[in-house]
Amino acid sequence: MSASIVFYDIPSTLPNKCWSPNLWKTRYALNFKGIPYKTVWVEYPEIEALCKQIGAAPTRNKPDGRPHFTLPVIHDLSTGAVISDSTKIAAYLDTTYPEKPVLMPAGTAGFHRAFEDAAHALIAPIYPYGLPASHTKLNPLSAEYFRRTREESWGKTLENLAPQGDEDAIEWKKLKDGFGKIDEWMRASGEGSLYVMGDAPCYADMWMAGYALWIKLVLPDKWEEIQTWHQGRWAKLLKSLEEYETVV
Amino acid sequence: MSASIVFYDIPSTLPNKCWSPNLWKTRYALNFKGIPYKTVWVEYPEIEALCKQIGAAPTRNKPDGRPHFTLPVIHDLSTGAVISDSTKIAAYLDTTYPEKPVLMPAGTAGFHRAFEDAAHALIAPIYPYGLPASHTKLNPLSAEYFRRTREESWGKTLENLAPQGDEDAIEWKKLKDGFGKIDEWMRASGEGSLYVMGDAPCYADMWMAGYALWIKLVLPDKWEEIQTWHQGRWAKLLKSLEEYETVV
Repeated sequence: MSASIVFYDIPSTLPNKCWSPNLWKTRYALNFKGIPYKTVWVEYPEIEALCKQIGAAPTRNKPDGRPHFTLPVIHDLSTGAVISDSTKIAAYLDTTYPEKPVLMPAGTAGFHRAFEDAAHALIAPIYPYGLPASHTKLNPLSAEYFRRTREESWGKTLENLAPQGDEDAIEWKKLKDGFGKIDEWMRASGEGSLYVMGDAPCYADMWMAGYALWIKLVLPDKWEEIQTWHQGRWAKLLKSLEEYETVV
Repeated sequence: MSASIVFYDIPSTLPNKCWSPNLWKTRYALNFKGIPYKTVWVEYPEIEALCKQIGAAPTRNKPDGRPHFTLPVIHDLSTGAVISDSTKIAAYLDTTYPEKPVLMPAGTAGFHRAFEDAAHALIAPIYPYGLPASHTKLNPLSAEYFRRTREESWGKTLENLAPQGDEDAIEWKKLKDGFGKIDEWMRASGEGSLYVMGDAPCYADMWMAGYALWIKLVLPDKWEEIQTWHQGRWAKLLKSLEEYETVV
């Protein structure tokens, strides 16, 4: 089947190249829907020019007010649509390809937004650990850009970003409690249920799996611990979505 | 139809007695499902003894570790079940009366929890305004208890709780932004949709309406403004659920 969608992803030196949580979300979504697509790899410093060239909207503004362009972006060659932002991409895929497996079951788009906002705040303590670790996996062109922009926005060198000592203990506990709260939500859908909606995965599960897979790939030592949390829920989640990790 | 459920609510001096957001949530839920019930009014200082007597579980612990008993509680005479906590009551009603209109559509229990946690944090700035105003509507027995316990937990007199001057402007803006974020979630389910899930109300809408109706009843001046926010969404929400406000 020839590819009908171009998926712009950011490469790393990892075996499968894909690494970023937001990019994994879209990759899970594309593989889950089974829409033929082709990955085009874009290094960080090239993202803005690419987006302007293909007409991809910025996803937010930079602190100075200029537009901020980010990946994922997809270009659907069969409709001409160019969509940025992983959640908007998921919504687009459901609307445009309703005959394919559904990412956000009818009526749950609003709940998905609430889930993402709330879950993002809960797992935010992972960033100071995950950003320096991600940096070590990038190609030189992206690594330089990533260091410069992240150090600017965090006001710290990447080497000083990961919490140490007491702060480490506090932040790591916050992270575990955050995952614990999300586990609690999931258990509300049925004690033994693997997914946010119970028996079948929806986009919110791929959203969570995007973060879990990022941690597994760039922070393998941390993942050793996280995969034991909450009766192994996060490891089981990744295992169950493994078939949608394919990189094409 | 004779009442099969006893619903324990906290009275006020308002015409319909019911006033508290958490109690409105359960009242909306009972009326929406159309299950015959009867309200029993309980003043604050009597809640703990009642709960212990009928075997209602505490909903959380007090700062000192002792169990904290709260309303709503329902006692379902047809099954013998006694349930506390508005969300657990909604889940119980769906499980026990699946043939009645559904509060949390299949698979959305986890999403409901995420929505509630996230929305509660967003609208939390209303409390310092709403608590003193609620106090003025309580019967003497509850008013004394309410003042004592709220002043203890907030470390301020009720008279000094509502933000003033600059702080008022900041907190009120936070509240508006919080409602704005929830509006954004709802719009993700369809630009013109009135409800979290689009065209039909679910428990998350009753949850929001519980807060809106509380504000309307105890802070009518503030409600004048809030009902103009977000294209009148909150006023429209209350209007559309008005038929489920019945107090029996």
